[in-house]
Amino acid sequence: MQNIYDNKKFFNEYIEMRDKEINANNLIEKPIFKSLIPYFKDKKVLDIGCGFGDLCRLAVEDGARKVVGVDISKNMLEKAKEINSDSKITYLNKPMEKLNEINEKFDFVLSSLAFHYVEDFSKLIKDIKNLLVPGGYLIFSQEHPVETAFMPPQNKNIDKKIDIEGKRYYLLSDYNNIGKRSVRWNVDGVIKYHRNFSVIINSLAENGFFIEKLIDSYADEEAIKLEPKYKYQNDRPYFLFIKAKLL
Amino acid sequence: MQNIYDNKKFFNEYIEMRDKEINANNLIEKPIFKSLIPYFKDKKVLDIGCGFGDLCRLAVEDGARKVVGVDISKNMLEKAKEINSDSKITYLNKPMEKLNEINEKFDFVLSSLAFHYVEDFSKLIKDIKNLLVPGGYLIFSQEHPVETAFMPPQNKNIDKKIDIEGKRYYLLSDYNNIGKRSVRWNVDGVIKYHRNFSVIINSLAENGFFIEKLIDSYADEEAIKLEPKYKYQNDRPYFLFIKAKLL
Repeated sequence: MQNIYDNKKFFNEYIEMRDKEINANNLIEKPIFKSLIPYFKDKKVLDIGCGFGDLCRLAVEDGARKVVGVDISKNMLEKAKEINSDSKITYLNKPMEKLNEINEKFDFVLSSLAFHYVEDFSKLIKDIKNLLVPGGYLIFSQEHPVETAFMPPQNKNIDKKIDIEGKRYYLLSDYNNIGKRSVRWNVDGVIKYHRNFSVIINSLAENGFFIEKLIDSYADEEAIKLEPKYKYQNDRPYFLFIKAKLL
Repeated sequence: MQNIYDNKKFFNEYIEMRDKEINANNLIEKPIFKSLIPYFKDKKVLDIGCGFGDLCRLAVEDGARKVVGVDISKNMLEKAKEINSDSKITYLNKPMEKLNEINEKFDFVLSSLAFHYVEDFSKLIKDIKNLLVPGGYLIFSQEHPVETAFMPPQNKNIDKKIDIEGKRYYLLSDYNNIGKRSVRWNVDGVIKYHRNFSVIINSLAENGFFIEKLIDSYADEEAIKLEPKYKYQNDRPYFLFIKAKLL
């Protein structure tokens, strides 16, 4: 897995974006993610791709007895230890591909906007299954399949989206073309992986996960008031959220 | 629910389309639907929106002990009785909104390309739950959410799809705008209902359905050989298939 968050230029621009209060993470992703989180009292929580550790701290504040945050980026974890340190939180520097090295069980596995960086989704879900107690929950968000579908063509005249009279078109010709996407985000060559709904849902099903809730993201009135451009996010999907219970 | 199949002009054009061997039903939908169907030996099967009764006959040939086919259209059922008659098949003239009038339980509920005509999806799934034995299966196909999302605008300059250099763009501005779509298909004013993945998956979850398999449709090599235009269907979704088990 690419460790883009330890790329200095990328990380600086990422920090700058996250420091703004008005961004898609704060206004759209976080409120929906929080709506899916139950009461953590006395529970053990694993956060995959924990970044700055915001979710780890939230879990502790909500009564979790132990939280483990995993991230591939040393930069991210340094910042996490600085701003979200707690005796109940352990931060592990580890890529998502090596979750099988963790030898304990959790009641909840959380992951916010990280899974689209993993190439082998089926293995990831299998590893998570092995980290959960029976009846445990996986709650995650990722970029929505209609967002990740775009495959930058050789021909640079093809755009990801076309806006015509306030209406937005998406290029979906590569929706069923599963795999790597090299995109520009702060820097060139950020590697993400596109999956259609088939791959996502079937990987969960095959590993015994019951999908309790799925949300195609939207922006609420509050978000649109703060950032008018999010009116686009109100009527088309941007992130995907799934809450699934291990049977 | 609109009974468009009893509209004479619509029905005649529909028959003409279905009589062609090369169409999306035969080349794309049927093979995938059949791949989801298990062994029906001694099982009771309900087919919702059975149309010509092709699936009903298939179920009987596959060993089902009783099959009930339901359809809103008398035209469709007349044709079904003509070409797919069997002592084990009962055809009922009934809209999908009145499934609660059926007082028996089934091992399998099937439905091919009919659910996008129903306004209240949550009620439909609840009714189906009441018609299934525990451990029974619901297997259905419908138009894919990225296909049904399009909402014809007042401004006629806006198209559903834009093709640029062999790439296809979809208008997704109304993806999260759930509800009625009045579209032209053989005749003007055919009423369908758009739902996003949230609505579809959550209705199943709330009624205790475990999703075993979900398929975003594709066209295989064989289909593309017979109908080159289906190369579009090979890389973007067209139908959606779900196989779900009642826990």
